[in-house]
Amino acid sequence: MPDHVYKIIELVGSSSVSSDEAIRNAIAEASKTHSHINWFQVIENRGHVTDGKVAHFQVVLKVGFRLEG
Amino acid sequence: MPDHVYKIIELVGSSSVSSDEAIRNAIAEASKTHSHINWFQVIENRGHVTDGKVAHFQVVLKVGFRLEG
Amino acid sequence: MPDHVYKIIELVGSSSVSSDEAIRNAIAEASKTHSHINWFQVIENRGHVTDGKVAHFQVVLKVGFRLEG
Amino acid sequence: MPDHVYKIIELVGSSSVSSDEAIRNAIAEASKTHSHINWFQVIENRGHVTDGKVAHFQVVLKVGFRLEG
Amino acid sequence: MPDHVYKIIELVGSSSVSSDEAIRNAIAEASKTHSHINWFQVIENRGHVTDGKVAHFQVVLKVGFRLEG
Amino acid sequence: MPDHVYKIIELVGSSSVSSDEAIRNAIAEASKTHSHINWFQVIENRGHVTDGKVAHFQVVLKVGFRLEG
Amino acid sequence: MPDHVYKIIELVGSSSVSSDEAIRNAIAEASKTHSHINWFQVIENRGHVTDGKVAHFQVVLKVGFRLEG
Amino acid sequence: MPDHVYKIIELVGSSSVSSDEAIRNAIAEASKTHSHINWFQVIENRGHVTDGKVAHFQVVLKVGFRLEG
Amino acid sequence: MPDHVYKIIELVGSSSVSSDEAIRNAIAEASKTHSHINWFQVIENRGHVTDGKVAHFQVVLKVGFRLEG
Amino acid sequence: MPDHVYKIIELVGSSSVSSDEAIRNAIAEASKTHSHINWFQVIENRGHVTDGKVAHFQVVLKVGFRLEG
Amino acid sequence: MPDHVYKIIELVGSSSVSSDEAIRNAIAEASKTHSHINWFQVIENRGHVTDGKVAHFQVVLKVGFRLEG
Amino acid sequence: MPDHVYKIIELVGSSSVSSDEAIRNAIAEASKTHSHINWFQVIENRGHVTDGKVAHFQVVLKVGFRLEG
Repeated sequence: MPDHVYKIIELVGSSSVSSDEAIRNAIAEASKTHSHINWFQVIENRGHVTDGKVAHFQVVLKVGFRLEG
Repeated sequence: MPDHVYKIIELVGSSSVSSDEAIRNAIAEASKTHSHINWFQVIENRGHVTDGKVAHFQVVLKVGFRLEG
Repeated sequence: MPDHVYKIIELVGSSSVSSDEAIRNAIAEASKTHSHINWFQVIENRGHVTDGKVAHFQVVLKVGFRLEG
Repeated sequence: MPDHVYKIIELVGSSSVSSDEAIRNAIAEASKTHSHINWFQVIENRGHVTDGKVAHFQVVLKVGFRLEG
Repeated sequence: MPDHVYKIIELVGSSSVSSDEAIRNAIAEASKTHSHINWFQVIENRGHVTDGKVAHFQVVLKVGFRLEG
Repeated sequence: MPDHVYKIIELVGSSSVSSDEAIRNAIAEASKTHSHINWFQVIENRGHVTDGKVAHFQVVLKVGFRLEG
Repeated sequence: MPDHVYKIIELVGSSSVSSDEAIRNAIAEASKTHSHINWFQVIENRGHVTDGKVAHFQVVLKVGFRLEG
Repeated sequence: MPDHVYKIIELVGSSSVSSDEAIRNAIAEASKTHSHINWFQVIENRGHVTDGKVAHFQVVLKVGFRLEG
Repeated sequence: MPDHVYKIIELVGSSSVSSDEAIRNAIAEASKTHSHINWFQVIENRGHVTDGKVAHFQVVLKVGFRLEG
Repeated sequence: MPDHVYKIIELVGSSSVSSDEAIRNAIAEASKTHSHINWFQVIENRGHVTDGKVAHFQVVLKVGFRLEG
Repeated sequence: MPDHVYKIIELVGSSSVSSDEAIRNAIAEASKTHSHINWFQVIENRGHVTDGKVAHFQVVLKVGFRLEG
Repeated sequence: MPDHVYKIIELVGSSSVSSDEAIRNAIAEASKTHSHINWFQVIENRGHVTDGKVAHFQVVLKVGFRLEG
């Protein structure tokens, strides 16, 4: 098994539905330009409030994928 | 555009349903006494367990709102 | 009220459904071997991605229970 | 059991006697204006030195209490 | 010298001029409602960008003042 | 001198008397089931408040002991 | 309002003039290749010293911009 | 693929040879009592010095293994 | 000396031999696509275990290089 | 009032009596060689255990004093 | 090129003018007693407030210099 | 056994060979001027890259030694 190298990028997914959906949105966006995505790690969980209600969950996450070295 | 000043308060929302609902409960409570709430940031995600089951999700969050300076 | 001592263990729950379900799975597993579980605290929220989609939410959490000293 | 919301405030207690007394002084002050105080968490433990001796222990702590929502 | 108790609040000052000016704006706002302000501590230094230029420096800071216990 | 391996467990000691006593209570409980305890490290210092007074100091600590490998 | 995804990159700006100028230099460089830059967050503030004087302020910052998904 | 639960324990490996060997010693010890070990994570890298030389590298690490739920 | 801007990317190098080799593998991979690499900083040191032995050291590192602005 | 410069050194005080006494012992030792000590800040609170009892509280602290510039 | 060893000391610079000036004051003081100063790193940015205005910016910084081994 | 006081200094060791050798180089340098060195703790592991290869491992470490009070 060779010694792989992975790259980690940082994204912010947003969703008006849920925190998990914000994660899924970011992964979906990342998979458009990167194949071999392996894992994600949540860095921060925040959100935008309008009119006293949560308008968007905003999840900052790191996304890791294998480089095709 | 003037130089606004914002205040940040720390709350703990709880919910027997979900982590996201605990956030929404805290924002709802905060909006009773503060208008102009703009954002929240999750500080800690914990919970209470009874009889081997999650009884309450408890989410510590910072809530930011604009001061009407 | 006596001075109790509590023990904290660290677990990783996983779920293909949601982050909260990953927490519940870990608590369910912990309650098989430990009674008196009182609280949990999320340490890290990560996950596994396959085919550009979230395959598993993986939540690292600390679980606290009273020792029957 | 309803879904309570709690507020957390940050205080610094000081005492020339001990670290624990600095905590107690802060809790005593907080209880003058807030009922339903439930817990505290020490954030920082520092102090003032004069003439080569500890003059005051200064303990930064977060204090949590239930909002009567 | 009595054992004082201090309160710490969290503010975000903003300024289109500089980071230091953002701090001064927050302190000026805080001094409208709190006397006895003693110190501040920068928690985070961020900002807003428009048209590829820094539009506002936004400095999150804790502000401490003595309670008149 | 051989290459020892140590295990670290996490406990919460509580005491109505003092923070130090909470540490001692946790060490006493740990020594019932583990010999060769060598050190402890305080992770968090918190407590329970009832009727506006500190009811229990609760100290989260890591306790390290040598495995008899 | 759609659910946007943002990307965060990490840069180090340097300036012989001031910390704020180091931030502005990094933002100016980033805006050459990325449009839709929305915010920055300072991660670290350091510098290079030569002949006992600050030669360069070096500010590590995260820069966030909207992906045109 | 079922939703596994993993346990994480904390160990300190020591070695007079190298940091990596200290890690290997801890893993070897852990594998005596736990099968299904999957990963480790270094928490702290420290050591003991005698006569002005490194006598032991001491590596604190978390070790994760699957529970046979 | 002009005011340079640097970019920092995050990589994970792996190696079955040693932690240092995992770092070297990541730097070698990064140097294929980026010239002017100046420094690295280890963020996390972890690894994969199979059959009770360290199969791969996995080192997460930040890698900084000068932008040719 | 001139612009003072302060130096911060790091010490570990130990005491078989209490955590606070360990702080006082470190301050007493520091005051033998440094005048103008102004403040201390606790960095870590740990201890040594022998025969299942706390043998020494060991408090790591930073100590700040004014340089006579 | 030999394997240098560097020492890092911690200082607090203060200035009534600006945060950057507080850094410069600390570096100027350090260069009186240490040659070969290479870099600084800001650890904390705080300040003293009197009469509702910033009286002094106080910047805690680490200063590194090469030992002439 | 008396209540000892220890001092902690911060050093950066460098080595073109390995991370562990960088640690040993720093300890060797420290032992020239300090006897009674007891322990070290790695704070940061970084390095210098030239021509796409690791030129120097640079390990920031704290070194503790007993004061002969």
